[in-house]
Amino acid sequence: MAKRNAFYAQSGGVTAVINATAAGVIEAAREHGDRIGKVYAGRDGIIGALTEDLIDTSQESDEAIAALKHTPGGAFGSCRYKLKSLEENRAEYERLIEVFKAHNIGYFFYNGGGDSADTCLKVSQLSETMGYPIQAIHVPKTVDNDLPITDTCPGFGSVAKYIAVSTLEASLDVMSMARTSTKVFVLEVMGRHAGWIAAAGGLAGKTDEEPPHVILFPEIAFDREKFLAKVDQAVKDYGYCTVVVSEGTRDAEGNFLADAGSVDAFGHKQLGGVGPVIADMVKSALGHKYHWAVADYLQRSARHLASETDLQQAVAVGRAAVEMALAGKNSVMPAIKRLSDAPYSWEIDEAPLAEVANVEKKMPREFISEDGFGITDAGRAYLAPLIQGEAYPPYNSEGLPEYVQLRNVAVDKKLDTFKLR
Amino acid sequence: MAKRNAFYAQSGGVTAVINATAAGVIEAAREHGDRIGKVYAGRDGIIGALTEDLIDTSQESDEAIAALKHTPGGAFGSCRYKLKSLEENRAEYERLIEVFKAHNIGYFFYNGGGDSADTCLKVSQLSETMGYPIQAIHVPKTVDNDLPITDTCPGFGSVAKYIAVSTLEASLDVMSMARTSTKVFVLEVMGRHAGWIAAAGGLAGKTDEEPPHVILFPEIAFDREKFLAKVDQAVKDYGYCTVVVSEGTRDAEGNFLADAGSVDAFGHKQLGGVGPVIADMVKSALGHKYHWAVADYLQRSARHLASETDLQQAVAVGRAAVEMALAGKNSVMPAIKRLSDAPYSWEIDEAPLAEVANVEKKMPREFISEDGFGITDAGRAYLAPLIQGEAYPPYNSEGLPEYVQLRNVAVDKKLDTFKLR
Repeated sequence: MAKRNAFYAQSGGVTAVINATAAGVIEAAREHGDRIGKVYAGRDGIIGALTEDLIDTSQESDEAIAALKHTPGGAFGSCRYKLKSLEENRAEYERLIEVFKAHNIGYFFYNGGGDSADTCLKVSQLSETMGYPIQAIHVPKTVDNDLPITDTCPGFGSVAKYIAVSTLEASLDVMSMARTSTKVFVLEVMGRHAGWIAAAGGLAGKTDEEPPHVILFPEIAFDREKFLAKVDQAVKDYGYCTVVVSEGTRDAEGNFLADAGSVDAFGHKQLGGVGPVIADMVKSALGHKYHWAVADYLQRSARHLASETDLQQAVAVGRAAVEMALAGKNSVMPAIKRLSDAPYSWEIDEAPLAEVANVEKKMPREFISEDGFGITDAGRAYLAPLIQGEAYPPYNSEGLPEYVQLRNVAVDKKLDTFKLR
Repeated sequence: MAKRNAFYAQSGGVTAVINATAAGVIEAAREHGDRIGKVYAGRDGIIGALTEDLIDTSQESDEAIAALKHTPGGAFGSCRYKLKSLEENRAEYERLIEVFKAHNIGYFFYNGGGDSADTCLKVSQLSETMGYPIQAIHVPKTVDNDLPITDTCPGFGSVAKYIAVSTLEASLDVMSMARTSTKVFVLEVMGRHAGWIAAAGGLAGKTDEEPPHVILFPEIAFDREKFLAKVDQAVKDYGYCTVVVSEGTRDAEGNFLADAGSVDAFGHKQLGGVGPVIADMVKSALGHKYHWAVADYLQRSARHLASETDLQQAVAVGRAAVEMALAGKNSVMPAIKRLSDAPYSWEIDEAPLAEVANVEKKMPREFISEDGFGITDAGRAYLAPLIQGEAYPPYNSEGLPEYVQLRNVAVDKKLDTFKLR
């Protein structure tokens, strides 16, 4: 079989370990130099393919590629650019295949969430009909942890660890000063549609007394009175209360709490997120001094506190994607299959893309405690293994992590310019 | 000389390493069991002394005390409770000395910032006139880094490291997605009165291109037009812009920017901090998509990312305080004296409390770049050594840091109840 090149692209929000997956793909491809030519990466994700802006990863040393395993962000650039349906914009799909053909690309590794799984599937299907078959392999990644079939999504375990540790640390701070200072601490976390990240905050403590005392999930309609009563009781019982709130928390009518707050002097919608809204609600109703934090990008880029489990899985799905391609697979995704909770063991399985694309895995109700403010033993059994192990980056003598910056050398273009919509 | 007991209390905002100082004090005292009896700790800081709520640290194992070195928060509790002047509330000072006398306490180790240095000095002075001389040693601690004489304050180096690393990590995230997503990222950091913590964000990059592109200091009056022009230029030149803003940033009239924002539906002052105010300003004026984070307590409790330099200094000032007490010193503070920048070397010096109390060390103008938006080489030379080295806590098999919880056994009371004001 003639050698063909590979194309790799990062899609959507980046994570602390998406580059580890890139390293897995590139290292595995280099080990099979007899069958895979070069690995080209899309500059800024799929946009790089559409605009024929390809990065020649063969210009990077083995050391630089290995260093991707400890470097957060997206080393080649990522993008939020969802291809429309085939009916709406067939030209984009055709362009992708044209670019792949021009650069002898036979393997398409798309590293992303649900949207990119869908794109991946369509590229594969269309390439068949266009007579230039591409083996399209989707490589899972998302801090949202919402892909089906796979036990978890690389990127999630590290965010989960960051949120669990931060919840614990900030709570020790608050607890020690609650007598005369802050009594209620609110930590806002990501997760617009699902409460996986908020749930991870629950790993910080095991008993009712241990923090967090309240978790607010997008899956549970926010009930102001029940929430305030819970906070009040925690302050009475333990002297303080830690609240972890998902940015996607909504009321019974489905309105985001983050939208319910203040307007500024010009009538603009309030600037804050749900964290300050919740904190202010506590202050108004109960009078407690509060503090709030919004971790935002800090949580998903915190490679300094990555989960070793997450890192291993991130590398493994990258390597497995290449192995699947070499085994002739198409329209599949390497999925993590859990073999046991404790000790956690897992292996890589194969998921058909048709069953992955556009399916959102919600958090099961049985992972959330009956009162809606915490996680259950089942939830803990699922989550706990994902934050196990510490995968620290190397640090330089100045006390900063040694994150790598690739050279990202462009491949010469062969086609006409393509205008992005 | 007869054995006398020691009293140790934590004051004000806690840090990632204040417990390491406690460990230094207690371990050094245990090594001198011939001269120092028990170390009593104040439950919730100085309130514990006023209310005769003393913790018997001799009930804690050597292992538990050693574990304080890797445990954030305040292990005995801290408080925000400033003793009034001698004239205004002499009764409180007299009560302290009464409690010390009742428990044969001859050494007073007060671990805090400027206010506690002042209290420490007064206790020493009054104890002389009351005929029960106490050796009062102030032990420096504050993330604000605003104590005079000492090169730095234990607690600051770890916050500085957290902010520098977080700025770097979040910027890698933003940079990789700026083409189609967030272009301006704003990180709000602590420092109501001085820009030391904001300045630490400047360690994330060295060139104009590297983040952060803008730092907003409390020391520099905020100029909206200059700020927006700087952000706009960074987005044009580098594709994105990272802003580190101190919570204490003010306009030319001295008003906090954090107070300048929105009011909610009930007319309450806005909920957010300065981070969202700044981010919204950028959006309104320049139209760029933004994200903002408020690290809040996460930054000062982040023991998972402590600076080894900071940790060593935190332990050293605790040990030195005991040694000074045993050498017969009074009304002094162990101060860190810098011997050289690179390689960083330091020793412990002795500072008279009279020169420490109520003096605030501001950031020198020469540490801030001419345009007011960055740090200079001099600032970098000062800051860089403070974040060197990584002092990780041990983790358990579940992936969480093994932070210690002390037993905190109360000492039997001997006096009547004292009513706190």
